[in-house]
Amino acid sequence: MKRDPRYDVLFEPVKIGPVTAPNRFYQVPHASGMTNALPRVRAAFRETKAEGGWGVICTGACSTDPSSDDSPLPFATMWDTNDIRAHAMMTEAVHRHGSLAGVELWHGGASVMNRTSRIPPLSPSGIPWMATHVGFMGNARPKTMDKSDIRDVLRWQAEGARKSRTAGFDIVYVYAGMGYLGYEFLLPEYNHRTDEYGGTLENRVRFVRELLDVTRDAVGKDCGVALRISLEELRGRPGTHQPSEAHEVIELLADYADLFDVKMDSSPTDCSASRFTGEGSHEPVIDFVKSLTKKPVVGVGRFTSPDTMVSQIRRGVLDLIGGARPSIADPFLPVKIKEGRHDEIRECIGCNICISSWHDGVPVRCTQNPTAGEEWRRGWHPERVDAAKKPGKVLIVGGGPAGLECALTLGRRGHEVTLADKGTSFGGRLTFETRLPGLSTWNRVAEYRLGRLNEMTNVSMYLESDIGVDEIIDLAPDHVVLATGARWTRMLYSSMEIPVGELDHPRVYTPDDIAAGRLPEGPTLVFDFDSYYMGGVLTEYLAQQGNEVTYVTPAGQASAWTIMTNELPLVHRALARRNVRVTTLHMLTAFDGAMATLTHLFTGETFRIKCRSVLVVGLRMPRKELFEALTARSEDVSAAGIKSIRRIGDGLAPGAIAHAVHSGHTCAQELGGKQYAPYRRDTPIVDAEPEFKSRAAAE
Amino acid sequence: MKRDPRYDVLFEPVKIGPVTAPNRFYQVPHASGMTNALPRVRAAFRETKAEGGWGVICTGACSTDPSSDDSPLPFATMWDTNDIRAHAMMTEAVHRHGSLAGVELWHGGASVMNRTSRIPPLSPSGIPWMATHVGFMGNARPKTMDKSDIRDVLRWQAEGARKSRTAGFDIVYVYAGMGYLGYEFLLPEYNHRTDEYGGTLENRVRFVRELLDVTRDAVGKDCGVALRISLEELRGRPGTHQPSEAHEVIELLADYADLFDVKMDSSPTDCSASRFTGEGSHEPVIDFVKSLTKKPVVGVGRFTSPDTMVSQIRRGVLDLIGGARPSIADPFLPVKIKEGRHDEIRECIGCNICISSWHDGVPVRCTQNPTAGEEWRRGWHPERVDAAKKPGKVLIVGGGPAGLECALTLGRRGHEVTLADKGTSFGGRLTFETRLPGLSTWNRVAEYRLGRLNEMTNVSMYLESDIGVDEIIDLAPDHVVLATGARWTRMLYSSMEIPVGELDHPRVYTPDDIAAGRLPEGPTLVFDFDSYYMGGVLTEYLAQQGNEVTYVTPAGQASAWTIMTNELPLVHRALARRNVRVTTLHMLTAFDGAMATLTHLFTGETFRIKCRSVLVVGLRMPRKELFEALTARSEDVSAAGIKSIRRIGDGLAPGAIAHAVHSGHTCAQELGGKQYAPYRRDTPIVDAEPEFKSRAAAE
Repeated sequence: MKRDPRYDVLFEPVKIGPVTAPNRFYQVPHASGMTNALPRVRAAFRETKAEGGWGVICTGACSTDPSSDDSPLPFATMWDTNDIRAHAMMTEAVHRHGSLAGVELWHGGASVMNRTSRIPPLSPSGIPWMATHVGFMGNARPKTMDKSDIRDVLRWQAEGARKSRTAGFDIVYVYAGMGYLGYEFLLPEYNHRTDEYGGTLENRVRFVRELLDVTRDAVGKDCGVALRISLEELRGRPGTHQPSEAHEVIELLADYADLFDVKMDSSPTDCSASRFTGEGSHEPVIDFVKSLTKKPVVGVGRFTSPDTMVSQIRRGVLDLIGGARPSIADPFLPVKIKEGRHDEIRECIGCNICISSWHDGVPVRCTQNPTAGEEWRRGWHPERVDAAKKPGKVLIVGGGPAGLECALTLGRRGHEVTLADKGTSFGGRLTFETRLPGLSTWNRVAEYRLGRLNEMTNVSMYLESDIGVDEIIDLAPDHVVLATGARWTRMLYSSMEIPVGELDHPRVYTPDDIAAGRLPEGPTLVFDFDSYYMGGVLTEYLAQQGNEVTYVTPAGQASAWTIMTNELPLVHRALARRNVRVTTLHMLTAFDGAMATLTHLFTGETFRIKCRSVLVVGLRMPRKELFEALTARSEDVSAAGIKSIRRIGDGLAPGAIAHAVHSGHTCAQELGGKQYAPYRRDTPIVDAEPEFKSRAAAE
Repeated sequence: MKRDPRYDVLFEPVKIGPVTAPNRFYQVPHASGMTNALPRVRAAFRETKAEGGWGVICTGACSTDPSSDDSPLPFATMWDTNDIRAHAMMTEAVHRHGSLAGVELWHGGASVMNRTSRIPPLSPSGIPWMATHVGFMGNARPKTMDKSDIRDVLRWQAEGARKSRTAGFDIVYVYAGMGYLGYEFLLPEYNHRTDEYGGTLENRVRFVRELLDVTRDAVGKDCGVALRISLEELRGRPGTHQPSEAHEVIELLADYADLFDVKMDSSPTDCSASRFTGEGSHEPVIDFVKSLTKKPVVGVGRFTSPDTMVSQIRRGVLDLIGGARPSIADPFLPVKIKEGRHDEIRECIGCNICISSWHDGVPVRCTQNPTAGEEWRRGWHPERVDAAKKPGKVLIVGGGPAGLECALTLGRRGHEVTLADKGTSFGGRLTFETRLPGLSTWNRVAEYRLGRLNEMTNVSMYLESDIGVDEIIDLAPDHVVLATGARWTRMLYSSMEIPVGELDHPRVYTPDDIAAGRLPEGPTLVFDFDSYYMGGVLTEYLAQQGNEVTYVTPAGQASAWTIMTNELPLVHRALARRNVRVTTLHMLTAFDGAMATLTHLFTGETFRIKCRSVLVVGLRMPRKELFEALTARSEDVSAAGIKSIRRIGDGLAPGAIAHAVHSGHTCAQELGGKQYAPYRRDTPIVDAEPEFKSRAAAE
């Protein structure tokens, strides 16, 4: 296929100070969760995107000093010689593909707790940053920076820039966004200073301008200097001679950076889930930047459509198409656009499992791309897979996320695959879940795979095939893979915090009942101890149907785990819009068809509320009937020449859709191939002995 | 001083299978947060306890396989050659002092989420362990182990035991406690199996017995085999021929281990805070063990009194005095008892900051012992400190936790120290806080230091000294250290989650008012966005005084951060006992003297409640008046020969008491001495190239 000429503009080079990006695809800095402790894992993860055509590849936040210590959240460091070598692995890998490498130098200011370094956090005026935020709570408050602290941070930035140049980076960042130190100087809520760094906007901008100055002085002849800045709050504040303070900040800094990387201010808006926010949502905040600077501008918006990308450029919103999540879901997005293979794009679904990995403190995961983070440690590649040494006949039972991914990967490896599903369409749990409020985008998980599978001649797919043990033995494949999914149970949550005992009443429902069209009658109590999206989404859904719904959870918030995916505040707002009553910290302990008894998780105090039905969103258990039936007839199975029976996805261990896709992929990679054992263990670079970092004496 | 002969029993050797502990002081396995990534930090931390006389020093949980991956929580590993070398650093260090080294081999089963390894967690029957627990929430559920999984775990245990022997360990553990895999097999709520590993108690014990068997087969001739087991739940279940299932389990395993390490079942009981639980609280659960086995028994109970220790042994409760928290607070506790220096024991106060470090995912911290975890990286020792090269005159203003620790350490270094406090007693914030419900034990922070300071001839201490700039200039010390503490503000919490705007009304109080005896009148609303103990404790205190109190917080739980210190459930119970109404997820947004307006954190919905007073427990800010006054007269200060002015503790950056003590200690170590710069950075052992771990092929 040939590329439509209207996309040619995306492949034009862009000058960024002394360096030139080969095209407009710019992987903006984003968390990988990999840190300098996993340098090979990280280099391979970033390299794959360069190979896939991204013209610029950046690191995530890279601390310039131990006083910017975000532990236990993952962060990179640029403190010593070993760090330089660890990052050089990534820049060398990126350069192999002709792309530029950028480093997001970072000082967290009051937003870090320095839990490992035990240094008092730094801040303009002693104001903590979201220190009481659910999930980021700490009990250390920052010190107010004096002039020598300001000089220190500037010096660390300059030293970090020089180390970055040594490590081979082409673009060096100054970071003034997302509540980190530079940002804290910009906003008067954090900056109460009365010296030349506080008060007027000119003064509040001073620290960021000095960071840019020292960076340019350090490396500006060799590297592009980028400013990453959050503009949402500033855009809401009227300026003195411009429409907003955001305009005035950009005006003041227009010539100080070689590149403006512009964004929103906080996770729920900057990296918002598709459940609540569509593509291109940053535009209303950042659309003005190009009118005030001649320097190139990059921004994000979960862009996956080349038409949207071209429109952003043609309309003068952006010069470079920033990507973080879309570059994880499909590292080869630029190459696929370049080659006109749009159908093959593995679109980001905006589920934000990637950002949950960072909140979880671990390397990045992706629902759509199971190879993300596994490039080095398991030897996986998003576009290529080893051909099977001994292609065989594989029967997969169940066409949900795990079964589809397994079929796709086995098909690519050259196996002869039969995929059977008892439903009327493929997709498994997605079939129902993507019809629920806000989740339609997730259907790309099935659509992408079905599109590829339909092109394969070695994969046969059957619907309405309720296949049993006899049929399997008759088919006599070499291998059987069971992807039969999980069912929701009526188990309750006990004071020991384990599910014990099914709630027994004819009007107790599970999500499987709703999926099957069996809607609860009358006022309904939703009891959610799954705490991910299902309880909240079904509550919305039932309320939409006109049901009067009360939502009860033992957690402290509704859909508590969605704090990990930047959704939690929006879940509460969605429930409030539907007039749902939310009761937290309570267990459902009894239901008689008219009244439910709720018991406080900690105190044991009880109260009763009226309801006619109960929906339990709690424990899922694998559907194991077929596996057990096959196991019971293991002799017949062996006699038929079946060499292995494997389970994958929710049928093995219930999890999020990301777990199922990864499970299906793992099975397909390992079947008759490499044993990943389970993975190659990365080690930090330890060329240099542990060293004392130089720091100005306090006396 | 000479030891009282009644303590001699504590210094008798105890045989543990083929090895012999030199005395009865046994540092049981406990989390250090250090992991194999910080092998020198860890070895030095453990070595210091051996130096201090602990006869046995154990690791924390040490994973036998990547399927036991507790990330992001810290855990050690025993997977490969590098791991052996990392642990050998610790065993060599421990052996240098004649102590034994023990390793707590561990498989987390369903209690780990395998967030990094991405392997489905293992469990007896697919039941998750506290997967919906506040703070440990995840969205992966475990698989049900088949026979080959059981064989794998047994093999990993045996391989781990052999690697442990190679690393130089003397005692190797089997772990069947705290919700980890062995424990899950013991309890029928987790174990629904119908094979020989489930059902009867004999069957449920089988897996643990097999773990013991394979360990003994692997290393039992060279190493003691220890069983760590939780007995709280089992003790509550009637046995068939013994008083409880706990009795029957011990009876069945009586000869299978060389040592029984017995404990409670969950963090709030096993490692409970002194606020709610006293010394020796495990005894009612574990007192029977010695009656059923001839093997030595070790247990814990935050023992700090040698009389209590002797009593445990004389009464046949324990053979070895287990210590975790007391060994962190005072690594030299055994030596001090041995030498009759009881007054010098730095008693654990049971604040549980140590366990919060593990929950925070970082190396251990201790309120009482600021050198904990800093032995290698900052070169600190709990009992020794470098003499000052150039002793000088130092004035410390403020005798709270930071000032006392700074004075003590400067005094030990040989400086001439003057400590001045404007109050009528030393202790700073402790003076008031230790009078609040449950916090009296914390006064040991002041008492321990005052005891030592009173013995020093080079430290002068003055009370009721409200010292100002003129007095400081007159005194003309070489250095001034300001430990002037922080004050609580009336700042409110905004929708941006930062404190903005003081709440202005005559009946708005802060904790400082309560400390000064200014109690609020009438029904009082406590608005807590500090989220540590103060809001909850003051609510209890006001309710005790007969005040009708409503507690409001934007967090999801009362005193939400206390989940980190194992207190949260007990805080809720304490408030419930006082009939306090708790409202979560709300901000206080207005108060007119009769009504308070509460606004939902996420939805913005408001409601009003009646109250006559408001107590805001929110933002603290340093008391900076004296520092600013000194800075304003810097010429006079210089002319007086004052070389430096430093701030420490809450007066620099408000935090927990642990932060203040660490801050005071850091200042004293660095004043005219080594610059710790800020610390030496540890690196993992990377002798061997990254390797693939061997794992049985699935086919």
